[in-house]
Amino acid sequence: MTQLKNDTLIRALLRQPTAYTPVWLMRQAGRYLPEYNETRGRAGSFLALCRDPGLATEVTLQPLARYALDAAIIFSDILTIPDAMGLGLHFVEGEGPRFERPLRDEREIRGLQAPDPTAALRYVLDAVRETRGALAGAVPLIGFSGSPFTLACYMIEGRGSADFHTVKALLYRRPELLHHVLEVNCRAVTDFLNAQVEAGAQVVMLFDTWGGILGAAEFREFSLEYLRRTVAGLRQEHQGERVPSIVFTKGGGGWLEDIAAIGCDAVGLDWTLDIGAARQRVGKRVSLQGNLDPAVLLAGPEAVRAQAKAILNAYGKGAGHVFNLGHGVSQHTPPENVAALVAAVRALSPAYH
Amino acid sequence: MTQLKNDTLIRALLRQPTAYTPVWLMRQAGRYLPEYNETRGRAGSFLALCRDPGLATEVTLQPLARYALDAAIIFSDILTIPDAMGLGLHFVEGEGPRFERPLRDEREIRGLQAPDPTAALRYVLDAVRETRGALAGAVPLIGFSGSPFTLACYMIEGRGSADFHTVKALLYRRPELLHHVLEVNCRAVTDFLNAQVEAGAQVVMLFDTWGGILGAAEFREFSLEYLRRTVAGLRQEHQGERVPSIVFTKGGGGWLEDIAAIGCDAVGLDWTLDIGAARQRVGKRVSLQGNLDPAVLLAGPEAVRAQAKAILNAYGKGAGHVFNLGHGVSQHTPPENVAALVAAVRALSPAYH
Repeated sequence: MTQLKNDTLIRALLRQPTAYTPVWLMRQAGRYLPEYNETRGRAGSFLALCRDPGLATEVTLQPLARYALDAAIIFSDILTIPDAMGLGLHFVEGEGPRFERPLRDEREIRGLQAPDPTAALRYVLDAVRETRGALAGAVPLIGFSGSPFTLACYMIEGRGSADFHTVKALLYRRPELLHHVLEVNCRAVTDFLNAQVEAGAQVVMLFDTWGGILGAAEFREFSLEYLRRTVAGLRQEHQGERVPSIVFTKGGGGWLEDIAAIGCDAVGLDWTLDIGAARQRVGKRVSLQGNLDPAVLLAGPEAVRAQAKAILNAYGKGAGHVFNLGHGVSQHTPPENVAALVAAVRALSPAYH
Repeated sequence: MTQLKNDTLIRALLRQPTAYTPVWLMRQAGRYLPEYNETRGRAGSFLALCRDPGLATEVTLQPLARYALDAAIIFSDILTIPDAMGLGLHFVEGEGPRFERPLRDEREIRGLQAPDPTAALRYVLDAVRETRGALAGAVPLIGFSGSPFTLACYMIEGRGSADFHTVKALLYRRPELLHHVLEVNCRAVTDFLNAQVEAGAQVVMLFDTWGGILGAAEFREFSLEYLRRTVAGLRQEHQGERVPSIVFTKGGGGWLEDIAAIGCDAVGLDWTLDIGAARQRVGKRVSLQGNLDPAVLLAGPEAVRAQAKAILNAYGKGAGHVFNLGHGVSQHTPPENVAALVAAVRALSPAYH
């Protein structure tokens, strides 16, 4: 495969010196972009878009045509694994993901199997291959998956929830059943991320979107431990290149030191943390990715520049910072504010290196 | 007024020795209780129930008839203040609170006035007076309000939201307008809590339900500062008795030391924190209230007892702990699990005093 022309992200994730702070944005390809909506319209639905490697490649590349981003992230959904397990993913307009056949009893839980990613998730791997080819080494391609616990939340609840009370009732009533789901998910996530690396992903990221709903002890037992096992099972290298890993637990700020100790290369921060304080807490163990409040992108270019500067300044001088949001880009974001953000990070960050 | 027969809560909030750990539960009067649903049915709606002092007194007392709780909390809603400001509170079944006339422009914001609580909020004060009389000193009565920032969230967004992006866009675009709303709210909340104390509330609590959606710097500027000013304006004593104050920021675990330093007597903790670690962080500055995950109450009496014991044990020996949940009681809670919790705290906690 081609050499990377811009390896700033890889270097920053490995805490190596860079000329500036690399920037990419969670959900950088999405509904705030008119060209995305056009492609999605052609696909017919969000899931059809995810499942068509050609169209997934097209939308993955769209934000890179507009902005000087330092990475692409494969366009997909965090719930492809449980769908491949047969749970029947679908989307209800305005209400988010649903599973037709959530895990409802012990028999269903005991029958759960990790899918072979090269079969049931081949459409994602094909999109990774096609995107990697189309990028031609311009910037690295990030592969991703939901975390074992976050997948379990949707698999058991059957949908998003403010409190995931079905999941938590199972956790407190039959912890061994939840552990079984998490073990299967851990195998599935590890296999899927390694398959994405084989297909061409140069960085992998674990989205632990719901780990933050747990108590401290429960987070360690039911989410962190499976993040640790997943990271331990990841390919560290592919074709002679290191493949860095990023772990992001939304609402996990209280457990930052613990997350930084599981073996990942970088930790994603949500916007509630001061990134300077976070850097002091993790020391040199990991790089940090984040953490602008996505709501700043609703305000206007001046607020965007001021807040971007505040974050660069809070992180301070030296290697190990990947600029990102603290959560995905909102669909209500004016695209010109994203342009202002990427330009501001590029213009202001060399002073910190 | 009558002497308190059980002043365990007051003593614990003031870090004085007690024979056991007092317990009450956020939303202890609510939809999980069949007798509540019966009274609500008679009232016709949730708001009619809040506005009828006789019925509000009735539901306030219902959980005390079932459980050996150490406090009553007046049955009301956190959004009575903006309703009294003329924003038109109503509830959409299954979707939570809405305002008919949210703050939409600078003119509306500049025209905002703090209401006279003895007029527009008299129904709450009447309920406080009636409940205080009915309690006859059995346990203390807690009055409460939403925090200035949390009220502003609903007043500007017009309803609940996952990200309150209208509020945040205003915060980043026109911070001076949000500050104006917060100043008016601060005056309104202070007046309202002091009026509740005059009417008979023996403890006051500020619910900062949405402070945790902010970044660290924004929390300090837009929520914490107004919590501080509110607490500074509270009556410390009434009729020769100290009136302790409790501040609860959901999702505020990262800022615990800051919240503990604003002058309140106690800080409420959500369930994501280890209460032992929290105690080490705040030292002797405040008491701590919390912090069982309300989802534990969905699991069963054995899980309830085990988790209650874990929290008592994590806090450890000595004064300054008020047992509570880390969030309100879920409507799906079996009442017998609440009985198991209150009994467990009463049985297990004397060993820690």
